[in-house]
Amino acid sequence: MKAYKIPEATVMRLSIYSRFLHQLMLEGSETVSSGEIAEGVGVSSAQVRKDLAYFGEFGTRGVGYKVDELYGYIMKILGLDRQWNAIIIGAGKLGSALALYQGFADRGFNIKAVLDINPQIIGARLDGIEVEALGKLAERVKEQAINIGVITVPASVAQEVTDQLIQAGVKAILNFSPRILKVPQDVVLRNVDLSVNLEVLSFNLALNHR
Amino acid sequence: MKAYKIPEATVMRLSIYSRFLHQLMLEGSETVSSGEIAEGVGVSSAQVRKDLAYFGEFGTRGVGYKVDELYGYIMKILGLDRQWNAIIIGAGKLGSALALYQGFADRGFNIKAVLDINPQIIGARLDGIEVEALGKLAERVKEQAINIGVITVPASVAQEVTDQLIQAGVKAILNFSPRILKVPQDVVLRNVDLSVNLEVLSFNLALNHR
Repeated sequence: MKAYKIPEATVMRLSIYSRFLHQLMLEGSETVSSGEIAEGVGVSSAQVRKDLAYFGEFGTRGVGYKVDELYGYIMKILGLDRQWNAIIIGAGKLGSALALYQGFADRGFNIKAVLDINPQIIGARLDGIEVEALGKLAERVKEQAINIGVITVPASVAQEVTDQLIQAGVKAILNFSPRILKVPQDVVLRNVDLSVNLEVLSFNLALNHR
Repeated sequence: MKAYKIPEATVMRLSIYSRFLHQLMLEGSETVSSGEIAEGVGVSSAQVRKDLAYFGEFGTRGVGYKVDELYGYIMKILGLDRQWNAIIIGAGKLGSALALYQGFADRGFNIKAVLDINPQIIGARLDGIEVEALGKLAERVKEQAINIGVITVPASVAQEVTDQLIQAGVKAILNFSPRILKVPQDVVLRNVDLSVNLEVLSFNLALNHR
């Protein structure tokens, strides 16, 4: 990865600002202040200004930001000025829900293939996509120019399918399994463990019971 | 919330250590070193020692930790030495997948009710749970002693159902909608925006294309 280092929390807030700006565009707003963005998404206006300052000065003092300009800029920063192709490995309940999740396509993430090893699931249709055998992995990654692999298999096989994705040339992994995966330096990994999220809540709830 | 402040990243790693320790217990291991934990979950051993040091010294130099003792301690810290009751608001694809997700029950999170406003979904069964009308919210929260509300409704109504949950007495919210929610100081909120996770990946992928 390049040295261009922006905190992940900032990237996540940029993602949320972009949704708010898109809403403003639909409503016909032309300019917006950092205070209005802050109010709209629920963070402090100092935080909004700090986040946007990572990318240089492009607001006008007293006027604020041009909505469409800021939106376009953030979308470009986030890599959302283009389409990305994703493959889902594991067509269980979570994998199927993700394959059908409209929110991905709305932001330029196209689910191009869904693979599984269960003969009872292979052949099932999830909207326009047919679940295929895991053996198709390398072929589909190449043919569909896959950028992102989404892991929704059990923890016991998560590293194995990740290795296969990386060997096939995938440079970004979104991991839903509760396994810490090892990936080379040039591969981006992001973990989303749904139970861990609940456990951060229970940790905090338990604090209040001590 | 109390002042007992532990970084969220540490809490998330504790959650992962606990799974590894549980695996060791099943395999019959009695002691484990920080190096072995590190190797097993893929973080540095210095990080493991630092994380565990938040809770005082309880390893023995040269011997390591007693597996069952450390496991029990971490589970208690995480609030997983007890059961938690959750309600899911929104029985669309994501809400249904979460209701059926075995990983929650395995860690002591029991989905006690699933509500929706869509008449075509109300009455459907998700394993043992029947989807009920949103109007049942306050009644179900009280009757089932709900601790955690899980939000899987569209962004446009997410704040409204959150307010209803809080008014009914829920103190922890897991938010899957792409909306930044406002909650009182005494309510714990955790956001899981699935698209935002993909966007952190695309941000990093785009960096490598610049």
